[in-house]
Amino acid sequence: MTRPRLKIIPLGGLSEIGKNMLVMEYEDDILVIDAGLMFPEEEMLGIDLVIPDISYLLERRDKLRGIVITHGHEDHIGALPYVLPQLNVPVYSTRLTQGLIRVKLKETRALQDADLRLFSPGEQVELGKFKVEPYPVCHSIPDAVGLIIQTPIGTVVHSGDFKLDYTPVCGKPTDLSRLAHLGAQGSLLLMSDSTYAELPGYTPSEQVVGESLDHIMANAPGRVIVTTFSSLISRIQQVIDAAAKHQRHVFVVGRSMNDTTNMALELGYLKAPNGILGQIQNVRNFPANKIVLVTTGSQGEPTSALVRIANRDHRHVHIQRGDTIVLSATPIPGNESLVNKTLDTLFKQGAHVFYDKLARVHVHGHGSQEELKLLLNLVKPRFFVPVHGEYRHLSLHGQLAESVGITKENIFVLEDGDVLEIGAQSGKVTGKVGSGHVYVDGLSVGDIGGVVLRNRRMLSKDGIVVVIIAVNRQTGKLVGRPDIVTRGFVDTREFKDMLDKSRDILSEALDHASDRAIEWSFVNTKVKDILEKFYYEQTKRRPMILPFMVKV
Amino acid sequence: MTRPRLKIIPLGGLSEIGKNMLVMEYEDDILVIDAGLMFPEEEMLGIDLVIPDISYLLERRDKLRGIVITHGHEDHIGALPYVLPQLNVPVYSTRLTQGLIRVKLKETRALQDADLRLFSPGEQVELGKFKVEPYPVCHSIPDAVGLIIQTPIGTVVHSGDFKLDYTPVCGKPTDLSRLAHLGAQGSLLLMSDSTYAELPGYTPSEQVVGESLDHIMANAPGRVIVTTFSSLISRIQQVIDAAAKHQRHVFVVGRSMNDTTNMALELGYLKAPNGILGQIQNVRNFPANKIVLVTTGSQGEPTSALVRIANRDHRHVHIQRGDTIVLSATPIPGNESLVNKTLDTLFKQGAHVFYDKLARVHVHGHGSQEELKLLLNLVKPRFFVPVHGEYRHLSLHGQLAESVGITKENIFVLEDGDVLEIGAQSGKVTGKVGSGHVYVDGLSVGDIGGVVLRNRRMLSKDGIVVVIIAVNRQTGKLVGRPDIVTRGFVDTREFKDMLDKSRDILSEALDHASDRAIEWSFVNTKVKDILEKFYYEQTKRRPMILPFMVKV
Repeated sequence: MTRPRLKIIPLGGLSEIGKNMLVMEYEDDILVIDAGLMFPEEEMLGIDLVIPDISYLLERRDKLRGIVITHGHEDHIGALPYVLPQLNVPVYSTRLTQGLIRVKLKETRALQDADLRLFSPGEQVELGKFKVEPYPVCHSIPDAVGLIIQTPIGTVVHSGDFKLDYTPVCGKPTDLSRLAHLGAQGSLLLMSDSTYAELPGYTPSEQVVGESLDHIMANAPGRVIVTTFSSLISRIQQVIDAAAKHQRHVFVVGRSMNDTTNMALELGYLKAPNGILGQIQNVRNFPANKIVLVTTGSQGEPTSALVRIANRDHRHVHIQRGDTIVLSATPIPGNESLVNKTLDTLFKQGAHVFYDKLARVHVHGHGSQEELKLLLNLVKPRFFVPVHGEYRHLSLHGQLAESVGITKENIFVLEDGDVLEIGAQSGKVTGKVGSGHVYVDGLSVGDIGGVVLRNRRMLSKDGIVVVIIAVNRQTGKLVGRPDIVTRGFVDTREFKDMLDKSRDILSEALDHASDRAIEWSFVNTKVKDILEKFYYEQTKRRPMILPFMVKV
Repeated sequence: MTRPRLKIIPLGGLSEIGKNMLVMEYEDDILVIDAGLMFPEEEMLGIDLVIPDISYLLERRDKLRGIVITHGHEDHIGALPYVLPQLNVPVYSTRLTQGLIRVKLKETRALQDADLRLFSPGEQVELGKFKVEPYPVCHSIPDAVGLIIQTPIGTVVHSGDFKLDYTPVCGKPTDLSRLAHLGAQGSLLLMSDSTYAELPGYTPSEQVVGESLDHIMANAPGRVIVTTFSSLISRIQQVIDAAAKHQRHVFVVGRSMNDTTNMALELGYLKAPNGILGQIQNVRNFPANKIVLVTTGSQGEPTSALVRIANRDHRHVHIQRGDTIVLSATPIPGNESLVNKTLDTLFKQGAHVFYDKLARVHVHGHGSQEELKLLLNLVKPRFFVPVHGEYRHLSLHGQLAESVGITKENIFVLEDGDVLEIGAQSGKVTGKVGSGHVYVDGLSVGDIGGVVLRNRRMLSKDGIVVVIIAVNRQTGKLVGRPDIVTRGFVDTREFKDMLDKSRDILSEALDHASDRAIEWSFVNTKVKDILEKFYYEQTKRRPMILPFMVKV
């Protein structure tokens, strides 16, 4: 009889692997780490969100002991409203993370049935044969944790999203001594954040941003508008601290920024001196050089406060000469052109703008190569699985692990759905489970498949041509010329003659063909063939052709 | 009587200003600098290319003396096939640039009527009252020039796209002494490349890439595949040089890469030792460590050679273990995710991959802040107009100019279409001319307007619902239930019941309403209102609704 092995299965990331959900399975117990959402890629037209495919879990619902969340970012908690009603298991997290989960679940009315439980560093939670202990890590949100998981065959460490910051703004520095202690005892497996495995050196401390903000607020002649992610609570703290130092009042603009700020203040994760926070409608009562505004919009999102402010479309705030804008974030890949447009709009209005290319106004929340090597050195795992990153990041992280002495055969660069089985001495990828993506579009989860998306793509390129063909109910013969209506294909006035001609061509072809009564499948194919060819010759475009036959 | 003034009008860039076309006008003479194309932005669905709106020039065709091209990149020559047949004026360029223009014009059968003329550094061409003298500059393509333009009110310098490279691979270094001489005499106006005005310091020399390639080819255990832009002839030269040093043979893969390489070899802009270039079909005859492949695909373009190679879809080349891939280019903003996907595919097949984040395998072709300041210092212009860049780049370049002593009032940050009028002593923006963009989609230039694009956007998000309503020709009453066909809206099987129900709802509403004969405009609005509301309630999606009435 073979001894039972530990299974590791990353599930659901679009290009990132094991980011949004990861499954650990040992005999009859399953533990899930994180349940996040992904933002749709460019070609997923009209899709709002993408969530992991949890069919593997649904088939093994009785084995599932709980979901453990490492921190409160969307890509780690955002799928809970969709998967929790189906899985119905306890969700473990730290306090701030739970606050953020509550907000999410409330929005979708899934809070009532949710079984949310707290855990804290130093405590151990038993989930079947797994004993899970969170340890504090530094990331761009407070209360983030990594996980130390005792299993029957050894200790597993999951880093969560982390960097090493010895002077963090909120939260505690990563608990290195706990990990060193663990490494000394010997550990089985490390799964570690690979997001910045391409970057040499160390990620700078949040402190450098504090220094930049201090310098900017000291020298700005007028208002300072800082824009960042609403979840970046430590950045908001830095803004408040710098504002306080320079006797400026802080006004939080926008719903999501206000929601998070209030929640973080209530839970004590954000600290503001008395009277420093003002209501946006009172902003006019203060002189410009006593004002700091905090808004979302660092990604150039069209509905965000900053973009509305830049476009003079905001109720309370317009850009005025002398304003200083700080974009305290880097564009997420894909958002560059939106961000650049926003920057240009701000420059055109004469604002001073500080952004990543010009000043140290943002640092990211993931460890660079030296930090990743340090973690590997402390934990000293027998096996290593890089997670959280695109394939090349994982692959490079694997090379780093090899460079610090992990045996090459014990490093597993997985793809989503891969089933890795680990024993005390060896590991092996033994299979693949379904790990597709589930699209969320409007109210519906999962109905959008390849056909709908393919049609949207086709429609988006060259539009549609609808053809109505009337045939005589008795004789089956064509009645009149077919009607043609287009949308998104050509300018119908300029191409009136061409569209007209295509009706003639159709009439002739169908008349000619109809010695016998017109048959639908025949007409359908014939109309598509003729029009596709004709329109392509005339325009080099390929609209979707949609013929209808009506009996009159 | 006021003295005539020099007009400067940047025309046609999408976000970049004065990049693709710039107009200079003095009394009855107009000179155009460059005629390039733009690549469509994400929301310009189905658009192939964008070209400048030349209506200003068409209205003044009799004044137009010629088009002067600074270098052979698409964004400086790519609109010629579209605008030249309308404008019909001489086009001046250096030899390699003319070679590239010929290739372009031949493709669109516009070569025969084109009046292409050569000019060379040191020569002066008279175009009405303008005397134009090109001077060599360094850029990422050989034979690039800046322009020294004598006008009746003073000397104008246009930098073209440039950087300062004292050890260029092909072409001559920027002619600084000519510019210094000019500056000593006093110059009226400098228009200078702002692309990298955000970057402090100096742009590194092409030489650093040569060193990286040398190092990579020396150490690669197998084949080396270098991918770059086909226009980056100096990079191809560096690949050939490094290959020659390490006794590797060079195989050029792909049509556009072959076309450019052959043209550059013929014109003498590319030099290859005898026997080093091989035919791709013979690549199998050489040992892996004697092979270098050069391909396009550095932007992850789906039809490029590299992407087909990575996806095992290429006739002659597949990735094999031990291959080393060099991406000698940085992703153009907007292409990041395509490039990242290609990288991941290569990593998955076990290739070694060098790209900008990991190694110095690319340098760009534009000057950084110190180079821009040096040019300003040499030319010592009275007036300064930053060009070639998005608004923030121009604005930052304007600040640089101020920092080196140009009078603030004499610095003009323009937008496309702005008319700047310059006299000997002062300048002023006096108006705005039409400078929209002209969309090229398939064969048609300019017919795609707001309506077509808006429809494509709508179709791309939630698809379309076509409704066929039959009414009795005599009574005007509804006949049967309306037919509904959808594309790109929902999964029709899963939503069968909903679609069915919407037919019932429509029947009822229309039946009810039709005490009198059904009127089309009434039905049209009614159907749209009812279905939009119902579908949004059911799905939170907003498909385009397209109703038809058929009399039976």
